[in-house]
Amino acid sequence: MTHKIAVLAGDGIGPEIVEQALRVLHALGLSIQVEQALVGGAAYDEHGHPLPAQTLELAKSSHAILFGAVGDWKYDKLPREHRPEQAILGLRKALGLFANLRPAILYPELANASSLKPEVVAGLDILILRELTGDIYFGQPRGVRTAVDGSFIGEREGFDTMRYAETEIRRIAHLGFQTAKKRRSKLCSVDKANVLETSQFWRDIVIDVAKDYPEVELSHMYVDNAAMQLVRAPKEFDVIVTGNLFGDILSDEAAMLTGSIGMLPSASLNESGQGLYEPSHGSAPDIAGQGIANPLATMLSAAMMLRYSLNEDGAADRIESAVRQVLAQGLRTADIFEAGTTKVSTAQMGDAVLQALSKV
Amino acid sequence: MTHKIAVLAGDGIGPEIVEQALRVLHALGLSIQVEQALVGGAAYDEHGHPLPAQTLELAKSSHAILFGAVGDWKYDKLPREHRPEQAILGLRKALGLFANLRPAILYPELANASSLKPEVVAGLDILILRELTGDIYFGQPRGVRTAVDGSFIGEREGFDTMRYAETEIRRIAHLGFQTAKKRRSKLCSVDKANVLETSQFWRDIVIDVAKDYPEVELSHMYVDNAAMQLVRAPKEFDVIVTGNLFGDILSDEAAMLTGSIGMLPSASLNESGQGLYEPSHGSAPDIAGQGIANPLATMLSAAMMLRYSLNEDGAADRIESAVRQVLAQGLRTADIFEAGTTKVSTAQMGDAVLQALSKV
Ligand SMILES: CC(C)[C@H](C(=O)O)[C@@H](O)C(=O)O
Ligand SMILES: CC(C)[C@H](C(=O)O)[C@@H](O)C(=O)O
Repeated sequence: MTHKIAVLAGDGIGPEIVEQALRVLHALGLSIQVEQALVGGAAYDEHGHPLPAQTLELAKSSHAILFGAVGDWKYDKLPREHRPEQAILGLRKALGLFANLRPAILYPELANASSLKPEVVAGLDILILRELTGDIYFGQPRGVRTAVDGSFIGEREGFDTMRYAETEIRRIAHLGFQTAKKRRSKLCSVDKANVLETSQFWRDIVIDVAKDYPEVELSHMYVDNAAMQLVRAPKEFDVIVTGNLFGDILSDEAAMLTGSIGMLPSASLNESGQGLYEPSHGSAPDIAGQGIANPLATMLSAAMMLRYSLNEDGAADRIESAVRQVLAQGLRTADIFEAGTTKVSTAQMGDAVLQALSKV
Repeated sequence: MTHKIAVLAGDGIGPEIVEQALRVLHALGLSIQVEQALVGGAAYDEHGHPLPAQTLELAKSSHAILFGAVGDWKYDKLPREHRPEQAILGLRKALGLFANLRPAILYPELANASSLKPEVVAGLDILILRELTGDIYFGQPRGVRTAVDGSFIGEREGFDTMRYAETEIRRIAHLGFQTAKKRRSKLCSVDKANVLETSQFWRDIVIDVAKDYPEVELSHMYVDNAAMQLVRAPKEFDVIVTGNLFGDILSDEAAMLTGSIGMLPSASLNESGQGLYEPSHGSAPDIAGQGIANPLATMLSAAMMLRYSLNEDGAADRIESAVRQVLAQGLRTADIFEAGTTKVSTAQMGDAVLQALSKV
């Protein structure tokens, strides 16, 4: 069976890093059909919209999407609906990509890159499972209005609606327990149940779903405490499951604990296993076009794609070992370079991974 | 003039640490009238409510409130409106304590306590200014209802309302700029304007208020990025101003960067300068009654009280130097103890601060 992959390279360093990931994908000997389309600022420039209809159609009709990154300062002044990020939000919603998997893994070779002490982060391997299509990201009503109650009647107020329906919580909770089962069987559900009704409801449903997974150790933590514990002792966590907004914050915090966000992939899945795969880092317009960006997170995102959407675990394993090999060889792009290692360009990193791949 | 102070010691270690802070307050030679009342679980046990009417009345009629901590596992099963935390939320709302000042300071003597590398946090001195009476904490409507629109019509959903009125944003923004001016003149406003209408409105108002403070350097950061930058390079910040929910998360994250949350005070102020002062740490029921809790954050909260509500800067300075002296002497409660220092009890720490105070 031919795997149909939509490739949306986007803006900034997106095209450079995706190019290297594609070289790797093509070297695996799989039957892969790749189709590219514009997204983000690049799409806006060409079609007047960050997520043009043809890009969305391509994404919908593919088994998986390999995504680079979107965004550039030059689009900052656009009205919100035309800004590059809207493409991501639009894809998540249109494809129902409700489950965002954000691993925070610290490769032993890169332990120095972290701003945390080595003993606190060495061997870190946690997974943030973020709900991605609900919460205050999409809740209605929202906007700016004249306040009709409270202490500020008559003046302007900005407002948004946080919400989670039972089905949405159940499906991400199930995935949380199932994911934890395949790992160290610890699931921490993060909420703000001491203040938010949405969170209390979330917690009640998670507790109910837990009945199906007696073998998984479930804990609950308030989001403020989770933000602290991630700094204090991140290795205490295994899988964290949380809503869209808290997940946005905690997954980035967790990624930064490693100090090497240029290494971290992500997956966003829907109920039929279709997924969007992208590096956890951004479009880095400041270094775009210089050939120095780190393509490894994008390659590792391609590995997640093979595993979660294309059922090609063997190929995913091969990419991951090849990446570990180039690290062991001491090859580093500028973002993870330190004295005693060899600095390489984006393309040289691609060459090295291809080389390593030919041997695994 | 006699300063009228309401003392609400609360639960867990609250009474022990407040006792030591009161010794310090009484040793300053000021005219102080102290009245104690129950709050939190202790108040619930006695009066069936975490914030009884007489406690609230006392708080309202005082110039300032010295607060210990509330909460204990034994109240976890109570309905939300009876849980200890409700006392804090109730006090904030009833007294209009809209401005929460949360310094994150790393004392040179305690640099080892941090989970971050010394070079990343040495000399850390940032201030999180959190809006405390608006946002999704109090916004109406909220609850659990049957969804009437969206993809989940007919099923139960939990929901909350995030909101900020113009006046609320203006007053905290003004305070942010004024606070920054007295420090290193850098203000970072944190929001999620790429997703939330409330945040876009927040950002627009902050930009408008900035016109009055050309000497302060204003930046804007998304909350997910702020959570990362606090881990990566916290010293880049001076003052962070943000809403109630993001402030809850970021102030705790920032506190934990120091590794010594037992040292961090906080102030919550209203428009007339009345304030509630409490340590940033919690009630630690696991060590309550053992006489080992760290009373320094509570003493430093008393110092903030003297400075912000009682206009006694000199006395505030004296407490702060006395605390620095006992640290320099190598005295440490268990939470900040390390080899080569002297472990002391809560009361011994109180003795030492009193001793130091007699000389400054
Ligand atoms: C760009 C933005 C809308 C997005 C989000 O908040 O989800 C990003 O921060 C992310 O985490 O993918
Ligand atoms: C106890 C809780 C309601 C409170 C909050 O969320 O504000 C606490 O976390 C705090 O930061 O003071």
